[in-house]
Amino acid sequence: MRATVMHKAHDVSIENVPDAIIQNPTDAIIRITRACICGSDLWPYNGGPNVEGQRMGHEAIGVVEDVGSGVQKIKRGQVVIMPFVNSDGTCLFCEEGLPAACVHRDFFGNGSLDGAQAEALRIPMADGTLCPIDVAEDDALMPSLLTLSDVMGTGHHAAVTARVRRGGSVAVVGDGAVGICGVIAARRLGAEQIIIMGRHPDRIALAKEFGATDVVSERGEEAIQRVRELTQGLGAQSVLECVGTEQAMDTSMGIVRAGGAVGRVGVPHYESIPGAQQMFYNNVIVAGGPAPTRAYIDELLADVLEGRIDPGRVFDRTVDLDGVPDGYRAMNEREALKVLIRP
Amino acid sequence: MRATVMHKAHDVSIENVPDAIIQNPTDAIIRITRACICGSDLWPYNGGPNVEGQRMGHEAIGVVEDVGSGVQKIKRGQVVIMPFVNSDGTCLFCEEGLPAACVHRDFFGNGSLDGAQAEALRIPMADGTLCPIDVAEDDALMPSLLTLSDVMGTGHHAAVTARVRRGGSVAVVGDGAVGICGVIAARRLGAEQIIIMGRHPDRIALAKEFGATDVVSERGEEAIQRVRELTQGLGAQSVLECVGTEQAMDTSMGIVRAGGAVGRVGVPHYESIPGAQQMFYNNVIVAGGPAPTRAYIDELLADVLEGRIDPGRVFDRTVDLDGVPDGYRAMNEREALKVLIRP
Repeated sequence: MRATVMHKAHDVSIENVPDAIIQNPTDAIIRITRACICGSDLWPYNGGPNVEGQRMGHEAIGVVEDVGSGVQKIKRGQVVIMPFVNSDGTCLFCEEGLPAACVHRDFFGNGSLDGAQAEALRIPMADGTLCPIDVAEDDALMPSLLTLSDVMGTGHHAAVTARVRRGGSVAVVGDGAVGICGVIAARRLGAEQIIIMGRHPDRIALAKEFGATDVVSERGEEAIQRVRELTQGLGAQSVLECVGTEQAMDTSMGIVRAGGAVGRVGVPHYESIPGAQQMFYNNVIVAGGPAPTRAYIDELLADVLEGRIDPGRVFDRTVDLDGVPDGYRAMNEREALKVLIRP
Repeated sequence: MRATVMHKAHDVSIENVPDAIIQNPTDAIIRITRACICGSDLWPYNGGPNVEGQRMGHEAIGVVEDVGSGVQKIKRGQVVIMPFVNSDGTCLFCEEGLPAACVHRDFFGNGSLDGAQAEALRIPMADGTLCPIDVAEDDALMPSLLTLSDVMGTGHHAAVTARVRRGGSVAVVGDGAVGICGVIAARRLGAEQIIIMGRHPDRIALAKEFGATDVVSERGEEAIQRVRELTQGLGAQSVLECVGTEQAMDTSMGIVRAGGAVGRVGVPHYESIPGAQQMFYNNVIVAGGPAPTRAYIDELLADVLEGRIDPGRVFDRTVDLDGVPDGYRAMNEREALKVLIRP
């Protein structure tokens, strides 16, 4: 079968690899019908440690082709959403609604589990991991359903951990696909003011369609001042950190209101949280992490199926497997917001 | 009048200072009937920047001697609890239950407002700041009522921001008066397992009387391993950081369970929160700051008055004003846990 393999900075290719097969009784094999490229895939694409040979992709919808002898709930032929992390569905973290911290957690496409930018993928602990949906594999809602695999759930997690409240003020740091889904999530949770921070006209326009009320295109200290001006000098009650750089975290800590919260979902490329003193004296909360996407699907699915949210609009380009390397390039050069893959 | 003045490391004295007088219409003057020395007073006592001349003390109960023309609720003769920070009682933070972030906030005894280790004290914004109590000024409950000025409210804040839950597991970092009040708070909120981390036999014994179920006397990496052993390898759901050093914060981040929370109330003597990666991948929450003591008095007062909690037991020495300098010495040498002052 064919799959996406990272080699080194800016060197990703489609290659023939051994077919995905059942290895454990609790495995399932899915044929990938939709996958995509994530902003976080650009970290290894720009050269990270130990990326040689890494199988890429952690977001997909597929059709179940085969199940192991221990799989009880998932059936052949089902259309399923695959969260970006697997989970057993039974441990105490899964039971508490935090499957992203499952004791059997492994991430797809990050060097441990294989990747979803491929024709097929082995899913460990299929009963806990996969979410069957009663939708035909070519349904027009597929792009939005696909975002429940990661970006929409992740934007929602940023909003939840930043404690977005009805009538509250929100700042979203980053205008990538997750940031835009953060705008959708903030609006959905009833925020009154939603400030999008970014500088790409197309993305800003989309964010505004989704409910952003203000735009801050400055960076650094100027951005902090602008957000403060827009919030009566107080800062935003909820800050959604959707980038993962140290600068984005600095900005987040500078724009959060006393008593407010920063929900960070950008994969952190820094070692410590800055501003521990100001954070303390202002009783600021810092939370967030990998989204418990599997749990959030249950919460968000109806809104997608009934058309109340339309996060699939973050996809602005579609490729087949052969188009994946150019898709990486296009996202890396900010030519595309998010690339959908139809293998 | 006489008051406590800090000069430099290990040099604190009782001096004659100008009488406390009404300066603004919203001021009140209280005659201090009970005050105390706080663990945080030991930071300037051990030499901090700009301590020369600092008037000390931020915890007190007193009797209202005088009120300004704009004071409406507080009356002469009332016995009042004074929180460690003033608040106007009307700003949006006060209305949201976070008076410690009041837009008119100032801290007593830290260089801006005068201190409570004195015969009298001016209280700005008396209507918002002070809490009248219907108790005689020499009531036997005075030690416990006095803790509502800071340490009991602060221990409670650690527990609240660390999201202590009924049946949950808690680790308390630090066996000072705040840590011990954190044990009381965790027990009061229904925690099932309460691990006290410290090495002073008297304090540990008191913590156990208050509900601590386990003791960890190791430090650093060994302490982390011990807490993990006591929590099925998972760590504690709620960690109450009651020290404020970088080591205490390192330990806190090492012992918190995935999906758990660290509530920090130790005045931070570090610039950034360590372990931002592990914190992220484990969806750990870091929260806390100066306790909204004024708001918590309403919540905790009945439990003190009706004897359900007895935080006044953290006081193990009583002095008059002349005894204050030796009280600092005794607390600094860990000879006393917390010193009560009867001016």
